[in-house]
Amino acid sequence: MAATYDGAIQELIDAFAQLPGIGPKGAQRIAFYILGADRRSAQDLADAIVAAKEKVRFCEICGNVCETSPCPICQDPRRDRSIICVVEEPKDVMSIERTGEYRGLYHVLGGAIDPMSNVGPGDLRIPELLKRLGTDQVKEVMLALDPNIEGEATTTYLGRLLGPLDLRVTRLASGLPVGSDLEYADEITLGRAISGRRDL
Amino acid sequence: MAATYDGAIQELIDAFAQLPGIGPKGAQRIAFYILGADRRSAQDLADAIVAAKEKVRFCEICGNVCETSPCPICQDPRRDRSIICVVEEPKDVMSIERTGEYRGLYHVLGGAIDPMSNVGPGDLRIPELLKRLGTDQVKEVMLALDPNIEGEATTTYLGRLLGPLDLRVTRLASGLPVGSDLEYADEITLGRAISGRRDL
Repeated sequence: MAATYDGAIQELIDAFAQLPGIGPKGAQRIAFYILGADRRSAQDLADAIVAAKEKVRFCEICGNVCETSPCPICQDPRRDRSIICVVEEPKDVMSIERTGEYRGLYHVLGGAIDPMSNVGPGDLRIPELLKRLGTDQVKEVMLALDPNIEGEATTTYLGRLLGPLDLRVTRLASGLPVGSDLEYADEITLGRAISGRRDL
Repeated sequence: MAATYDGAIQELIDAFAQLPGIGPKGAQRIAFYILGADRRSAQDLADAIVAAKEKVRFCEICGNVCETSPCPICQDPRRDRSIICVVEEPKDVMSIERTGEYRGLYHVLGGAIDPMSNVGPGDLRIPELLKRLGTDQVKEVMLALDPNIEGEATTTYLGRLLGPLDLRVTRLASGLPVGSDLEYADEITLGRAISGRRDL
């Protein structure tokens, strides 16, 4: 007998092992957890997968995931319509919402410029962003891309593209993470913290 | 707006966050992976969960998970029926099968004695084990429980229970893991390796 499980168990393990962040051991652990759980909760998990796939769509305005288009943020009359925060992915919207510091609108690009993966500006929702900027309402675009190579390239590209427009274009501050130790900061982060120093 | 996603997305994240080894960030990452994947593979994952739950049962003889009872190992005429390996969980059967060193039968206890979690000998498949030992065929019981407190307690308990029977009762060797460094071995493991030393 080969060292694999009977059909349905192995198929379940294989299905979980394909998900991001789950290795073969983790997939096995999850599969046995499901086999040990009651039938109802296993069915709930299966239903949640199918329901999310069926119900979820992308907002026609900002590109965020939602069940109604336009999404609740784009529809909310209390949001500040003069500022648009540009992010890479829908999950970045949630990260910024959690801070409670931002009350404007969003624009999800759907990624960042990454020549190694053949993602160019044409693959991102940049025309949709320019169309939104055509109205008088928007006074500021806040670029909130990931602080890595792809995010920096996209920030630079958008900075040049939006520069000629009559808008304030800003980006998130780089510097030391709150609660961290100066001693353990890498040189680039510490350099950014110095060049971006502020008056007390 | 609260910092949660629209209904179906949040339900999917919550469903995954309940699985072992998956935290809130990991659950979010998996949920967005599924939303980005094609509908077919999301449906396959949902189907695998339901199918495994429906098809999988426990072998009436050894307690291993299987689609047919008795399981393929218990039914296999080439297995050595004179030795039974006692393990805690079905996944332990697979770990021992992968070594290719064992050709006997198994008995899955369904856990280990753990007073902290209110698991006593009565909660394990020990009566089923004793019933199997009633036949003349079985000459040896090999205890292969986890080398932790619960596994040791169960090994001790079973050792006393099976001692009076006309059987060889063995346990897995403790010692240094192959490929490891003597310098980094903990004192208990190194102590076991010394007390269990063998002649060359």
